[in-house]
Amino acid sequence: MFPQRFFRENLELGEGGETGVDNQIVEETFNRTGVSIMGKRMFEGGERFWPEEAPFHTPVFVLTRQRREPWERPGGTTFYFINDGIDHALKQAQAVAGGRDIRIAGGANVVLQYLNAGLVDEISIALAPVFIGEGLRLFDGVDTGRVAVDLVEAVHSPLVTHLRYAVKAA
Amino acid sequence: MFPQRFFRENLELGEGGETGVDNQIVEETFNRTGVSIMGKRMFEGGERFWPEEAPFHTPVFVLTRQRREPWERPGGTTFYFINDGIDHALKQAQAVAGGRDIRIAGGANVVLQYLNAGLVDEISIALAPVFIGEGLRLFDGVDTGRVAVDLVEAVHSPLVTHLRYAVKAA
Repeated sequence: MFPQRFFRENLELGEGGETGVDNQIVEETFNRTGVSIMGKRMFEGGERFWPEEAPFHTPVFVLTRQRREPWERPGGTTFYFINDGIDHALKQAQAVAGGRDIRIAGGANVVLQYLNAGLVDEISIALAPVFIGEGLRLFDGVDTGRVAVDLVEAVHSPLVTHLRYAVKAA
Repeated sequence: MFPQRFFRENLELGEGGETGVDNQIVEETFNRTGVSIMGKRMFEGGERFWPEEAPFHTPVFVLTRQRREPWERPGGTTFYFINDGIDHALKQAQAVAGGRDIRIAGGANVVLQYLNAGLVDEISIALAPVFIGEGLRLFDGVDTGRVAVDLVEAVHSPLVTHLRYAVKAA
């Protein structure tokens, strides 16, 4: 992500940067996202590293057991902390998405919960050629009796293969 | 595989079939393969289902503990049973490949042994949008301190994303 021009601008990392297919997909994904939903771990990781002007510029719903007032950042990002499950978070997100997409940003466990609940329309994967060797697997625990996918698009740069799948009933 | 024209011809499944990018890659892979190496389980699975004229038309080295005389099939396929490890199988394969590629056909465990031994130049993956839910993971146990990959190519049909990686030292 760090060499991409849009990412650099959005996180105020400095001028310049790549303008190829990776940058284009990062920018398109940002533009079509009206709300993000994420898990507690992803939020806590980001909370430490995002600049004061957090890079979402939309409402963000954080799934957590923690009770906390909405956290408004300069630049249009407000984090809302949801304590009563994925359905309620989705309903709240739909109410404020303004016709744009709702992005289940992660982590793996949150994506999987929405996927197995039949609430996901599309999966976008940025497949980087790196062996991590540990960590969570995205589809570990996917309900194969319920969830299936069709390939919609695959484009690549030297860095990443961008895979887009439509989700359907198995 | 079954709708692909080259696969149908090679296994004598009948005329016709798809002639798109999937078929092209199946055919190219066959043409550049001078020898295949496979594990015992893959061989035993195939032994039951291949037609008498097995679909390799080259020497095939099978890694196994079983001692068995070479098994010659009509059409140019001969299976050799190797009892003394992956290095010896590779040396034998190099001696008869005639300048064409040596294909580590599988399964996952055999691929991983060659990969971790630093003996693989390139990995080709046919990524199908299907959740299996069980089975062996291809890179489970990959030596991340030794093995790394660069993306060389990604092309796709509606059925499969064909990913080609060059292997390098980590």
